[in-house]
Amino acid sequence: MIERIAILGTGLLGTSVGLALREAGFEGAIAGWNRSPEQGQLALKMGAVDSLTADAIETARGSQVTVLAVPIYATLDFMEKLADVLGPEQLVTDVGSTKRLITETGTRLYNTPERAAFLPGHPMAGKERGGASLGDANLFRGAVWLFTDERFPDGSAAGRSPQATELVKEWREWVEKTGAKTLDLDAARHDELVAWVSHLPQFTATALSALLEEEVGGAPELKDVGGRALREMTRLGASPFSMWRDIAHTNTEAVERALAALEQRLAYLRENLRTPELRNEFEQANKFRRE
Amino acid sequence: MIERIAILGTGLLGTSVGLALREAGFEGAIAGWNRSPEQGQLALKMGAVDSLTADAIETARGSQVTVLAVPIYATLDFMEKLADVLGPEQLVTDVGSTKRLITETGTRLYNTPERAAFLPGHPMAGKERGGASLGDANLFRGAVWLFTDERFPDGSAAGRSPQATELVKEWREWVEKTGAKTLDLDAARHDELVAWVSHLPQFTATALSALLEEEVGGAPELKDVGGRALREMTRLGASPFSMWRDIAHTNTEAVERALAALEQRLAYLRENLRTPELRNEFEQANKFRRE
Repeated sequence: MIERIAILGTGLLGTSVGLALREAGFEGAIAGWNRSPEQGQLALKMGAVDSLTADAIETARGSQVTVLAVPIYATLDFMEKLADVLGPEQLVTDVGSTKRLITETGTRLYNTPERAAFLPGHPMAGKERGGASLGDANLFRGAVWLFTDERFPDGSAAGRSPQATELVKEWREWVEKTGAKTLDLDAARHDELVAWVSHLPQFTATALSALLEEEVGGAPELKDVGGRALREMTRLGASPFSMWRDIAHTNTEAVERALAALEQRLAYLRENLRTPELRNEFEQANKFRRE
Repeated sequence: MIERIAILGTGLLGTSVGLALREAGFEGAIAGWNRSPEQGQLALKMGAVDSLTADAIETARGSQVTVLAVPIYATLDFMEKLADVLGPEQLVTDVGSTKRLITETGTRLYNTPERAAFLPGHPMAGKERGGASLGDANLFRGAVWLFTDERFPDGSAAGRSPQATELVKEWREWVEKTGAKTLDLDAARHDELVAWVSHLPQFTATALSALLEEEVGGAPELKDVGGRALREMTRLGASPFSMWRDIAHTNTEAVERALAALEQRLAYLRENLRTPELRNEFEQANKFRRE
């Protein structure tokens, strides 16, 4: 039975995990750590964690489950540090947006009978801005929470200790109690797929917003003329670099392929604004939305 | 006093104009015409028009105000046909998404003391799908309704008959009663600006949706993995070719420029996924959303 959880990183996701666990009926202890203490205080005040710590490693050592809710490189860094201090009755899991590097690191440093379990996770939920203040107990309701466990699809397979296997099972149950739907995916397939359906939309919105800022950002009529289409296609332009930097660095090749493909598609459309090919592009796009 | 209005084209916009006029208290006659009779019947049933006609020209001849709510080339066609049969106590206006060609045609064929007035209009409101069934009395509430009158900003300037001038004034008042905010803009500036803030977002969503249909349209995990970002960035992928064809044809150069600029911006971002330049792109994009 999980009785003590550490949440390392109390930004939007970490705070939401704490709030969602409480909402789902978790009554054990939840300790929080955050690099900037203000976000930690906020998470504490909101009830997402019931104590704060300045020593993340020590707090993880005293917890059965440690949730890493920090950017990807910080996640990898914690994984390295925790691997040696945790034991086979402990579980580390994460919420990072790319999974290949993290999953490989988990296999390398965790998931043996003598070591803690590592369960790579990725809730498909978020907001275009971060921070504890946006934390939401219902953030995961109806969302998919992906796992890219190499022991897919169930944590009981070779390697882990029986206690760690049990913890993995129990944590997955808590995730489902937050209202999320769990889904298992191969880590490489995960990174390839999110390059198309998550990273490409984000980088497109960033490029479009940056371009529009340069071209019409100062136009006095902009506020009046821009409608819902503009707002919607640039909403993700508000996303913080701090979060996307690590994604760009850890899924570079797949994102490059997706961006290059979109550049070609836009060029093709541009060259065919006055030809019958334009109809095919619209019909192909319509098809994507029908499914 | 406007007592008889003809709405030529009872799709989403035409039907919404009729419903919004009724909601605003217009008690005169509203006659409707539509190329496909089913959409006309639907508009009649919804109360957007109180009669249907098979002879658009004859009905316009018997109306003080004719609203052209058809695609751009059909609008230009009606403008040609109506110019000779209407007189100085009549007004024609439109709702087309590009304005240079339509405004030039209005100057060429209308707006003399012997002829009807033409007032080029563009309500910045719509939905990603068309059709009378989506007609909405509140579609224009809070939206901007642009006018690109060459006699900008008030219809009383040289050319028009006093009666036509009065009709222009009265029609603008009705537009405001639908809840829209009217704004005057030069036609060339209009087309340049909407290329950036409306047409570029649309063609980007079309290219992105068409690409994703090809790359991941068949992936069984797609439904689960795609989140709000994906839905939002591809919603406009559902837009019909029939509406966008005329826009692509009548604002080609400005749209080409905007698309080429986005292609370059995406390439620049792709080449800088792992350099510090990525931060600048995110910060530039953040700035657009702050304003």
